[in-house]
Amino acid sequence: MPIPVILDCDPGHDDAFAIMLAAAHPAVRLLGITTVAGNQTVEKTTLNARRVCTAAGIDGVPVAAGLARPLHGPGIVAPDIHGESGLDGPGFGPPTVPVDGRDAVTFLRDTLLTHPEPVTLVPTGPLTNIATLLLTHPDAAARIERIVFMGGSTGRGNRTPAAEFNVLADPEAADIVLGSGLHVTMIGLNVSHRALATGEVVDRFRALGTPLAHLCTELLTYFGDTYREVFGFPAPPLHDPLTVAHVITPGLVRLVHAPVAVELTGTHTRGATVVDLDGVTGAPPNAHVGVDVDVAAYWDLLVDAVRVLGAPRRPVPADGDGVSP
Amino acid sequence: MPIPVILDCDPGHDDAFAIMLAAAHPAVRLLGITTVAGNQTVEKTTLNARRVCTAAGIDGVPVAAGLARPLHGPGIVAPDIHGESGLDGPGFGPPTVPVDGRDAVTFLRDTLLTHPEPVTLVPTGPLTNIATLLLTHPDAAARIERIVFMGGSTGRGNRTPAAEFNVLADPEAADIVLGSGLHVTMIGLNVSHRALATGEVVDRFRALGTPLAHLCTELLTYFGDTYREVFGFPAPPLHDPLTVAHVITPGLVRLVHAPVAVELTGTHTRGATVVDLDGVTGAPPNAHVGVDVDVAAYWDLLVDAVRVLGAPRRPVPADGDGVSP
Amino acid sequence: MPIPVILDCDPGHDDAFAIMLAAAHPAVRLLGITTVAGNQTVEKTTLNARRVCTAAGIDGVPVAAGLARPLHGPGIVAPDIHGESGLDGPGFGPPTVPVDGRDAVTFLRDTLLTHPEPVTLVPTGPLTNIATLLLTHPDAAARIERIVFMGGSTGRGNRTPAAEFNVLADPEAADIVLGSGLHVTMIGLNVSHRALATGEVVDRFRALGTPLAHLCTELLTYFGDTYREVFGFPAPPLHDPLTVAHVITPGLVRLVHAPVAVELTGTHTRGATVVDLDGVTGAPPNAHVGVDVDVAAYWDLLVDAVRVLGAPRRPVPADGDGVSP
Amino acid sequence: MPIPVILDCDPGHDDAFAIMLAAAHPAVRLLGITTVAGNQTVEKTTLNARRVCTAAGIDGVPVAAGLARPLHGPGIVAPDIHGESGLDGPGFGPPTVPVDGRDAVTFLRDTLLTHPEPVTLVPTGPLTNIATLLLTHPDAAARIERIVFMGGSTGRGNRTPAAEFNVLADPEAADIVLGSGLHVTMIGLNVSHRALATGEVVDRFRALGTPLAHLCTELLTYFGDTYREVFGFPAPPLHDPLTVAHVITPGLVRLVHAPVAVELTGTHTRGATVVDLDGVTGAPPNAHVGVDVDVAAYWDLLVDAVRVLGAPRRPVPADGDGVSP
Repeated sequence: MPIPVILDCDPGHDDAFAIMLAAAHPAVRLLGITTVAGNQTVEKTTLNARRVCTAAGIDGVPVAAGLARPLHGPGIVAPDIHGESGLDGPGFGPPTVPVDGRDAVTFLRDTLLTHPEPVTLVPTGPLTNIATLLLTHPDAAARIERIVFMGGSTGRGNRTPAAEFNVLADPEAADIVLGSGLHVTMIGLNVSHRALATGEVVDRFRALGTPLAHLCTELLTYFGDTYREVFGFPAPPLHDPLTVAHVITPGLVRLVHAPVAVELTGTHTRGATVVDLDGVTGAPPNAHVGVDVDVAAYWDLLVDAVRVLGAPRRPVPADGDGVSP
Repeated sequence: MPIPVILDCDPGHDDAFAIMLAAAHPAVRLLGITTVAGNQTVEKTTLNARRVCTAAGIDGVPVAAGLARPLHGPGIVAPDIHGESGLDGPGFGPPTVPVDGRDAVTFLRDTLLTHPEPVTLVPTGPLTNIATLLLTHPDAAARIERIVFMGGSTGRGNRTPAAEFNVLADPEAADIVLGSGLHVTMIGLNVSHRALATGEVVDRFRALGTPLAHLCTELLTYFGDTYREVFGFPAPPLHDPLTVAHVITPGLVRLVHAPVAVELTGTHTRGATVVDLDGVTGAPPNAHVGVDVDVAAYWDLLVDAVRVLGAPRRPVPADGDGVSP
Repeated sequence: MPIPVILDCDPGHDDAFAIMLAAAHPAVRLLGITTVAGNQTVEKTTLNARRVCTAAGIDGVPVAAGLARPLHGPGIVAPDIHGESGLDGPGFGPPTVPVDGRDAVTFLRDTLLTHPEPVTLVPTGPLTNIATLLLTHPDAAARIERIVFMGGSTGRGNRTPAAEFNVLADPEAADIVLGSGLHVTMIGLNVSHRALATGEVVDRFRALGTPLAHLCTELLTYFGDTYREVFGFPAPPLHDPLTVAHVITPGLVRLVHAPVAVELTGTHTRGATVVDLDGVTGAPPNAHVGVDVDVAAYWDLLVDAVRVLGAPRRPVPADGDGVSP
Repeated sequence: MPIPVILDCDPGHDDAFAIMLAAAHPAVRLLGITTVAGNQTVEKTTLNARRVCTAAGIDGVPVAAGLARPLHGPGIVAPDIHGESGLDGPGFGPPTVPVDGRDAVTFLRDTLLTHPEPVTLVPTGPLTNIATLLLTHPDAAARIERIVFMGGSTGRGNRTPAAEFNVLADPEAADIVLGSGLHVTMIGLNVSHRALATGEVVDRFRALGTPLAHLCTELLTYFGDTYREVFGFPAPPLHDPLTVAHVITPGLVRLVHAPVAVELTGTHTRGATVVDLDGVTGAPPNAHVGVDVDVAAYWDLLVDAVRVLGAPRRPVPADGDGVSP
């Protein structure tokens, strides 16, 4: 019985792989993709979600555009990492996948209220859509199975020394999600920086030999270049698909149950996720926090997803609920 | 020509080793020891400094008592780590080393203004004394060669998830020191957590066979027990002597020149040292920040210092300027 | 041509008068009443809005229930001022006015998008509904004529020394409204504390001799008692109807165009509205801020509204768009 | 028996009058004047204190220079209000009054420890000297009778909408003084803005007909001009001498005992004094806060002081302890 999932994302190079993994793997049924401002403006991330679906042959999965700015203050984007389009590197043709008529929050509410089972939300961008859903539709929020998000860190940040991009882009939203009382899993930089797409990994994608695999190597090459220039990394960390991989393979990411606070007011630390791994604060645990990952199993999942989606005759089920190998 | 140094400390198990290293090594001339509230109250840390000097045969080095509370707010102490005495574990006899008649800030000022060469300050506790000196005696501050302090972290803290004890104990003082424009070196938890006094290390001290060596193993055993209980460490990190070791052996600690900000206002992050290793903030560098350490060379220095001080007939120079092997 | 208005409120004794004034005066067309948590829980404030409409014979005006808690953190209520019901004092029969099927934000969106003219929003409680509307429905927000809210202060607060209740109850929402770029008018404590319902004023209501007038005197008596006990006021300030009065009679409240910031992060000042009346901050003006009021004209408006609504045979138009004298 | 007082100031036009009042009135024995950075740099405020003493014939009162910058962050000065010299307006000859060889904190400590009775401190500038004394010399602090300072406000600020200049110039110092547990009296803008030196007041000084009276009218004229330009005041408020007047005439300033917190962390409110006049915070009272002043009695005191000091043959006692009429 596949796990019903909505992916809330801001593609983004690594989001693209999260979409492909969620659409390709039979353990997950991808009910929809919602987009949010983050790596780029919501217009661009929505376009990019449609581009990825088109290129990967993912049809029948609704794509709904979400909020254009964070709950507070001006938004931030990451053109230094993802380029002006948010998905620089490969060429994309015009997307054939349409945009849902509903905004993301309405789509989330409708799907949560109508799907027969509770739904897992997998946010890989700023948590603006999810927090707004929780604020405005408590009835729908009660239908959330759990939230598995990419963001934060148990240690250093990336956008600032203290803060990771997704949380810094909407700290209040992260605070709302982490304070919601729902089952929340946070997979942050401390994990994703162990999942570097090395030359060997890129070679595995390249060896698949399909057009989609070629596009994936172009994405990883661009992403690798910006990570080398900005952060001096030897290879790019593929953050976002860790969430989907964790839903598919429990145990792939090792977790600890711990108190996580979002710093909202610091002068130098706004957006930091303060994770009390040693139990020194006395606060109750509110999140399952990733602390390690089985890197080999992770790359196996991703390479396999691109293989499946890129295969010439893969079956497309009529109801668009994912793709079986 | 030995480097003139004043050690400003809050003994404390690891401070004790810093005192011994500074007194024993010929590359350093220890002009005085000033104490401050930190690991315990200033009454206790002052008594402990005298105990260590007495036990290690360090005489002729003035010990001056410093400030009893931080610039702001209530102080914190660390009985969970260092015990009620601040130096639990070994038994100490009554100290024979006296207390200087001057308070620490006056002693620092006098020594800086009268010593013929600029003096290196080595703080291994909260920076209260040093910041007060900078605020109140700019003429003496101009005679500081540089400041090499143990505190902060480029990553996680210890007393809170975000803050290291010494900086959290007086964040405003750390902010003053880091904003002083002086040559400042910060060696923090990210370095000291690599310098664990493993069983093998303790065995090296034990093998020296002297009463002082025995006392050192008792200190390390107590410290190891509390670090295991509170933080789950396999062996205790010997933070403070890293500063003295770095003064003695340039290069022993690898440094980067980087911007460091102290978070003063965060809800969950007060006392965090925000180190911009990636140059993402645009702030100018204000500190030389430790990022790695030659662990083997470090233990060699410490074991040798205890060997020298514990030797039955070591010469005590009449002017009390340290001990040559 | 009456001004189309939606009143967003948390009744509350003074909100009750705002409802009556908006319903009674021919210069305003009251399109709807939305409720929000504030003086009491949203369940209670919604019931109270319906009670006031029932008692005052206001029918045909939709009442839509809004958000139950602020954008961040726990909510606050004011039973010390408004009692456990939020409208203690008079006895109310069961309300005959129904609740709209839509939530407040949806009602606001629908009304803004369908009404032929831009609509004036008049919030007299925490700004949670309005901020959520701005965040989630920018198309509807573009149809707002202006926002005239009761809240904040140019000087001292009431719920804390620095913060007024409505803004403190949802500071982030106030920040969103004041930062929206819309035409915003803020009427705060510095004005409303000049509009005390003295014994003479209460006598004017009593002299009307109708059941509604009697209910009003009971409201004012209860409100006066709590203001005397909690704040030592000689008579209660009738804050909320100032907004409606200002819409009806431009110039009744004297305004200055000034920069207003909401303090979100202060330790002792969260929720304070920092109004730069002297131009010392260099920030651009973002609100029209009330600084004085024509008290006599204000009471004339309110007494007249209660007179009109309480009259035995007042006409009720079939389309429920307010009440003409 | 005159009250022994040390005046800690940053002249400053209104400080000049505080000096004259403290020196002239027989109820006070002025033991010394300490200076601090505030209205101008400490070099300028020290020069100005000596200028005022010289012009007013105040000799035998030590003038000791204090700290040049606040405990944290960069200092602020007020050339827009007090001019580039800090005392613009009149011409001053070269001062004949010398500077004490000790710094202000040392002078304060020595005087407190040696004077036979406890001493009242009257700060009329930023509280940097006083806070440093409390931090570094608790033995001397125990000899303080009480502290009566000009600063803060129960309502709006002046340098920012929320903060008064003296407190904003060193908020941490104000926090230390207010948290010291000593008997502290705060007289702020809410009182001083009632004490405007109107044309009628200036005429009273002018009518004295002495050179000192002429200098005073020049000070008030300059001060009036800047207050009119910057704040639109009809006449300048003479803040600082209120403290001395209150020491001389208990009851001249009406006080309430209330909790006062200094906002250290606000984004828009740093330096605000949050005074809980209504007892809504539950904090214990820590200061006696001025809420009103007998304006007529105040001007009588000041005019009389200038009359006494300006008199051609006033006696100068050999021990410099003030001037009797």
